[in-house]
Amino acid sequence: MIDLSGIESSLVDDRVKGMPGGLTPIALSEIGRQGWNLLREDLPLPLAVISASALAHNGAWMRRFLCRSGAAIAPHGKTTMSPQLFQRQLDDGAWGITIGSVQQLQAIRHAGVQRVVMANQLIGKRAMRYVLAELARDPDFDFYALADSEANVAQLVAAAREASIGRPLQLLVEGGILGARTGARDLETALGVARAIKAAEPYLALRGVEGYEGILRGADTADTESRVARFLDFLAEIALACAREALFAPGTVLLSAGGSTFYDMVVERFRAADLKRRFLALTRSGCYLTHDSGSYRECFATLRRRHPEVDDLGPGLEPALEVWAYVQSRPEPGKVILTMGRRDVSFDSRLPEAERWFRPAPRASAKDLRPVGPGHVVVNLNDQHCWLDIPVDSPLQVGDMVSFGISHPCTTFDKWQVICIVNESYDIISAIRTFF
Amino acid sequence: MIDLSGIESSLVDDRVKGMPGGLTPIALSEIGRQGWNLLREDLPLPLAVISASALAHNGAWMRRFLCRSGAAIAPHGKTTMSPQLFQRQLDDGAWGITIGSVQQLQAIRHAGVQRVVMANQLIGKRAMRYVLAELARDPDFDFYALADSEANVAQLVAAAREASIGRPLQLLVEGGILGARTGARDLETALGVARAIKAAEPYLALRGVEGYEGILRGADTADTESRVARFLDFLAEIALACAREALFAPGTVLLSAGGSTFYDMVVERFRAADLKRRFLALTRSGCYLTHDSGSYRECFATLRRRHPEVDDLGPGLEPALEVWAYVQSRPEPGKVILTMGRRDVSFDSRLPEAERWFRPAPRASAKDLRPVGPGHVVVNLNDQHCWLDIPVDSPLQVGDMVSFGISHPCTTFDKWQVICIVNESYDIISAIRTFF
Repeated sequence: MIDLSGIESSLVDDRVKGMPGGLTPIALSEIGRQGWNLLREDLPLPLAVISASALAHNGAWMRRFLCRSGAAIAPHGKTTMSPQLFQRQLDDGAWGITIGSVQQLQAIRHAGVQRVVMANQLIGKRAMRYVLAELARDPDFDFYALADSEANVAQLVAAAREASIGRPLQLLVEGGILGARTGARDLETALGVARAIKAAEPYLALRGVEGYEGILRGADTADTESRVARFLDFLAEIALACAREALFAPGTVLLSAGGSTFYDMVVERFRAADLKRRFLALTRSGCYLTHDSGSYRECFATLRRRHPEVDDLGPGLEPALEVWAYVQSRPEPGKVILTMGRRDVSFDSRLPEAERWFRPAPRASAKDLRPVGPGHVVVNLNDQHCWLDIPVDSPLQVGDMVSFGISHPCTTFDKWQVICIVNESYDIISAIRTFF
Repeated sequence: MIDLSGIESSLVDDRVKGMPGGLTPIALSEIGRQGWNLLREDLPLPLAVISASALAHNGAWMRRFLCRSGAAIAPHGKTTMSPQLFQRQLDDGAWGITIGSVQQLQAIRHAGVQRVVMANQLIGKRAMRYVLAELARDPDFDFYALADSEANVAQLVAAAREASIGRPLQLLVEGGILGARTGARDLETALGVARAIKAAEPYLALRGVEGYEGILRGADTADTESRVARFLDFLAEIALACAREALFAPGTVLLSAGGSTFYDMVVERFRAADLKRRFLALTRSGCYLTHDSGSYRECFATLRRRHPEVDDLGPGLEPALEVWAYVQSRPEPGKVILTMGRRDVSFDSRLPEAERWFRPAPRASAKDLRPVGPGHVVVNLNDQHCWLDIPVDSPLQVGDMVSFGISHPCTTFDKWQVICIVNESYDIISAIRTFF
């Protein structure tokens, strides 16, 4: 179990973005007891908030999805980097947590996460020593990293031999895609890495095969899906070849892929894999938990098309994360500038989308929220400003509040050290910390 | 003076990106006494570092530049958001510090910065109340915000009247550019705002005129410069009209413009302004202190062309900020993937540029640093990965370290909560905290 006590009791003051000026330092766990409400202007904007109900809904949806599929999940922690959300995901039945860097590993080990997949190579003297020391210190620490080159395996075995911790460093051989990111491009290279790991027993142990299909882009959706399918079959082929050569260490083999776009295909293809031994299909979506209002919303529509039976699981994923800002200027009839910039909201996938607006007033509340209507389009973000084109008859005026749906949760989360959780009335009911 | 004691004594542990795994929590001020060296792999990568000598060089250069020009600077604090660097800038003679949001104001007030220009509108009940409470609490707090609409002025005067703190909220009327960001588009609008401020005495006080020319882009450099010049003249025209109508409050008038690209033109144009009363030309460059290896390096070359006499001030600005990463994979002969992503380095202006590489070895040191040579080009960044195209005969291999020059300091600073300061040997000699 994760120990959240240090996080819950950590102090928050008004240097933290989103906290009101003049705040006497309070424990993070006290934030939900301040009686703050976003629409009453109790907090400065910009403010990122997470809907408590959407978070619970999405967690339950993924639990049902995995239950039906028989696959497991180690959600990618890089999305939220919030141990409080990891606890929720583990409570929902997650097999472990995935991370993408040594700093992320350090942060989640600090909170006591026990089973971790590092979906990356373990590189550098300092990082290797840290992992080996953690493995030596804590017998319950169950760690897996990727390897895609014999050069890296040689470095790992040298470090593991020097540390001699009495148990192996567990590795997954990574299959990759020509023209894409890390990972062995062909079966022979992958097998070379796997054999090198096998030859380095008892310092290293080959525990499975991994790949990341989310980077594939074809000419159209059908082409992309066919490339994804071929790549997943390639990963299964590597695993089968490793099994044939008896390169895997004893125990359940891990066969892992799946970002937040194609996890349905991963589950389906891996279920069909015939490794002639016990294996676990391990998906790694990080974004399902908050979902988004942009690219992942579209990905989910495509998933529903591929697998209409997911509708049996109930209503699909809902966007849980939004960012609020004030209109600070309407310098031209067709334009407003808002108090939100690229330091506050994702812009790497798509620009945010204005969704609802609100005019603060003594008795106004969530019932007074209105959709912004057509023609309100974010056209630019500076560090601290958002440019919103509006129809000349838009009601927006200086001091109005606007909510924005985001595209790509990872790059909104990493802009906030504390994020408030809200109910349907926009009462702040709790808060999470992130560690980026 | 800024109180840095709280920052220097704040604890750092291994959840903070850049700190080594297993670090027993230490005070920030202790980081420089650990004997760490980047090239000895004492710290995990990615790691952002600032060159101590380049920082000192750039500070001294700007001091000489302003001395000669007679202008003042309130460096934009949004660039670094580091009170330790603000202290250095104030020691170098800065008139005050500029910020871009209420959270930034809260963070720097926490450190005790006394004179602050908020280069933005002050919007929202919570933000207005905070500023007015700070003004009431601390008679030495000297604060200026922008106004570009009568609507905003009406909100400010209502808040100031309610708070009745006994001194005025000081405002600069903001001139803007058609098609660009905030600011009054024409003289009549600007004067309307200025008159509304004047009418709201003693709650409000008009203290000057402000604009931001850095957003202007013409067809070519000459066209851009001519637009900048016209805009600066427009700001002076607003100031002259305000002076004529006696709209300014008593005291020195502030005439402020200048990002990190055209501050030479600001100084020159404003020196020529004839306001018939005492005024201070106030520039606001935030990026001069660390400079960069990309767009600002080019801007500086253009500045030297405009004003060759700056060469009398000695060697120009030097890039002080770089990010280091490991080669984690060379999956194809012409490509390496490194342990650095868009969470670690700027990508909004340009992609980072690989500069030098280093192969860790027992007796290797800074003398073994090598330029990467031509043909090493960053072609993509994911959240946690950098894609570097390389010549097939590149020496880079798994485990090598590569340094990257960055373009746009603001968006590299905001990805690090602690940044180490290094000497020429890459010894870590101190560290700064940021507050984003």
